[in-house]
Amino acid sequence: MPQQTKVDVALSCPVPIAATESILLGHGSGGRMSAKLLREILLPALQNPVLDRLNDQAIVDVGGSRIAFTTDTFVVKPLFFPGGDIGTLAVNGTVNDLAMGGAKPLFLSLALILEEGLPIDTLRRVMESIRVASALAGVVVVTGDTKVVEKGSGDGLFVNTSGIGLVSSGVRLSVDRACPGDLVLLSGTIGDHGITILSQREGLEFESAVHSDTAALHGLVAEMLRASGAIHCLRDPTRGGLSSSLNEIAERSNVSIELQECAIPIRDEVQGACEMLGLDPLYVANEGKLVAVVEPAAAESILEAMHQHPLGREAKIIGSVTDSHRGMVTLRTRLGTSRIVDLLSGDQLPRIC
Amino acid sequence: MPQQTKVDVALSCPVPIAATESILLGHGSGGRMSAKLLREILLPALQNPVLDRLNDQAIVDVGGSRIAFTTDTFVVKPLFFPGGDIGTLAVNGTVNDLAMGGAKPLFLSLALILEEGLPIDTLRRVMESIRVASALAGVVVVTGDTKVVEKGSGDGLFVNTSGIGLVSSGVRLSVDRACPGDLVLLSGTIGDHGITILSQREGLEFESAVHSDTAALHGLVAEMLRASGAIHCLRDPTRGGLSSSLNEIAERSNVSIELQECAIPIRDEVQGACEMLGLDPLYVANEGKLVAVVEPAAAESILEAMHQHPLGREAKIIGSVTDSHRGMVTLRTRLGTSRIVDLLSGDQLPRIC
Repeated sequence: MPQQTKVDVALSCPVPIAATESILLGHGSGGRMSAKLLREILLPALQNPVLDRLNDQAIVDVGGSRIAFTTDTFVVKPLFFPGGDIGTLAVNGTVNDLAMGGAKPLFLSLALILEEGLPIDTLRRVMESIRVASALAGVVVVTGDTKVVEKGSGDGLFVNTSGIGLVSSGVRLSVDRACPGDLVLLSGTIGDHGITILSQREGLEFESAVHSDTAALHGLVAEMLRASGAIHCLRDPTRGGLSSSLNEIAERSNVSIELQECAIPIRDEVQGACEMLGLDPLYVANEGKLVAVVEPAAAESILEAMHQHPLGREAKIIGSVTDSHRGMVTLRTRLGTSRIVDLLSGDQLPRIC
Repeated sequence: MPQQTKVDVALSCPVPIAATESILLGHGSGGRMSAKLLREILLPALQNPVLDRLNDQAIVDVGGSRIAFTTDTFVVKPLFFPGGDIGTLAVNGTVNDLAMGGAKPLFLSLALILEEGLPIDTLRRVMESIRVASALAGVVVVTGDTKVVEKGSGDGLFVNTSGIGLVSSGVRLSVDRACPGDLVLLSGTIGDHGITILSQREGLEFESAVHSDTAALHGLVAEMLRASGAIHCLRDPTRGGLSSSLNEIAERSNVSIELQECAIPIRDEVQGACEMLGLDPLYVANEGKLVAVVEPAAAESILEAMHQHPLGREAKIIGSVTDSHRGMVTLRTRLGTSRIVDLLSGDQLPRIC
C-alpha cells in the first residue's frame, strides 16, 4: 500500500510577513514565499476579480472582444545560454502566458532596463534574438521603453515584455477549472531550462549538452484546442517548475492532483545533474513545456494532436485529478510510495528567467 | 530683428554607435543619445509600421476594436518624493501614454523588480500608492509579475506598467500630424517634476516647496476631444522635457515649431532652481502636463475646455507650427532673439522617472 503522508498544517498557515521584514531572494522563487508576498502585500492593494483569478494572463473585455493581457520581466543570469538568451525568453515567455489562456498572441511591448556600461554589442545580439523569436512566433513588438541606470544599480540588462492576444469566444481555460476525474498531460521533458542555466552559472559540463527548451507554445495550444474543447486548464511550468504550476491548479480548483513519477519524461543528463546538485526536477524551471488538465474522454485525442506537433512529440499523461486531498499534489513514486509535492519553500534557483 | 541660428549639420548626422561602445546614462535621457540608440540599435531589429510611428502608444486593431497599447518602466530615484512616489508615477505615466493617443485607459499590468533587502514596508507603501492612483484614474491592474534580484544587482525597486485602452473610431492623434498653421497648447507649468526629484537628490530646499505634478491626464484629454476634433497631436513632455516632445513632433511631422518664451508658464521657484542649477526648464521632466498641436480655428474652444479642467487651468498657447525650418524647434526669447531648441545631447537628469 502506498504510504500516506500527513499534511503539515503549520506550513499551510505561515506567520504573516512583518512590516519590518525585507525582500529575500526566495520571494522571487515562484514557490511558497512568492505566493505569500503576492497574497499578503501585492494582491490586497490591487484586489479585483480578474487579478484574483491568478491566471498567467488576464482575460478582459475590450470593445466587445475577449483580450488576453499579460506581463513578464526577465532577469535571467547569464544573459546568453545554450538554446537561447534573455531576448528569446522574453518573447517566448510572454507568448506562452497568452497561449495558456487560449489566446492567439498578437502584439508585444518591450521595456528594457540597461545598466550603464552594458556593451552595445550585447544589446544588439539580444535585439536580434527578439527579432527572430517574434518573427517565429508571429507576434509584433509595437511599443517600447528604454531606461538606463547607473553602473551598480542594475545587472546588465533586464527585459520586460507585455503582450496582448485575442481569445475565441468558445475558449474558457482557467486555473480554477480542474475537476476530479480529469487527466493531467505534460508536453515533454522537464527541467531542461533550469539545469541549462544552472550549469552555465556553475561552469558544469555534462557528457551530452543540455540546452534550454525555450519555445513559443501557441501553435501547440492551437492544435490541442482544435482537437478538443474539453481542456480545462493550461499552464507553462516556468519558475518553481511543474510542482508550482500543479500546486496552483490544485489549490485554485480545490482538487487533488496525483502524479505518476514513472510517467514524467526527463532527460538522462537532466536527471543526472539534478541528482548531482541535490535538486528535485519537479521544481526546476521549464520554458517550452505546458501542462494541461483535460476531460478523460478527450485525453487521447488531445494527446494525439500534441504528438503531431514538434513541441509535443514526447507528451504524456502524467497524472489525474481526484478529490481525496483537496489543494494538494501527490506523487506516486517508482517505489510505489506516495509523497506530497509541496510548493518550494525558499529559492532553489534564483534568476532562472 | 531676431537672430537666425544656423543648423549644425554635424549634430543632425552623428557618427553611428560602434559595436565596441557601451551604454551610457545619456542613452536613457530622452534626448539625442536616446534617439540614436533607438534608431540604430533598437528599431532596426523590430521594424514595423506601428512601432516606426514612434508614438507614446501603439494603436492596433484587435477583434475589430482600436486598442491602444503602451509600456513604461520607472526607475526614479528616490522612490518617494513630494507629490508622489514610484507607484503614482507608474500608474499615471502609463495612463498618460494611453491618453496621448486619445484612448480611454482601461487595464494595467504591473511588473516589479525587487532588490533583495528592500524593506517590505517600502513595497507596501508603493503598492498603496498604486492602489490609490489606479482608483483615481479609473483603471484596473489585471495582471502582474514579480522578480527578485540579489542585493547589488538592482536598486530597491523598479516598476514596469503596461496599459491597454480603447480609442474611439473618430480619434486620430499622432506625432506626425502637425501642420503648418497649427497652434501649440501647453496645459500648465513646466519643470515641476524634474526639479522636485533633483532637489530631493541634492538635498536642496526652496522657499516655497516644489512638488511633482504627477497626475493622470485622460480626463483632461477627454474634455479637449469633446470640445473639438481638430487636435492633431498630443504628447506628455516627460523625460527630456518640453523640448524633446516638440522636437519629436517637429521631426516626425516635418514642420518647424516656434515657441514664445514669455508664453510658457513656469513657477518662480522652478525658474529659480533652474537658474541656480544651470538647467534649462525646457529640458526638465514633467509628469502631469500635456502639449497639444491643434488647428488654429479650434484653439480657443480647446483652450476654454482645458481651463475648465483642474489639470488645465493654466493652459496657454505657447507657439505655432510653421514650415520655415522643417524638423526644428525654435524659441523666440523674451529679448526678441530666436534660438534653436535642440534635443538634449547627453543626460541632464538621470532616473527622473
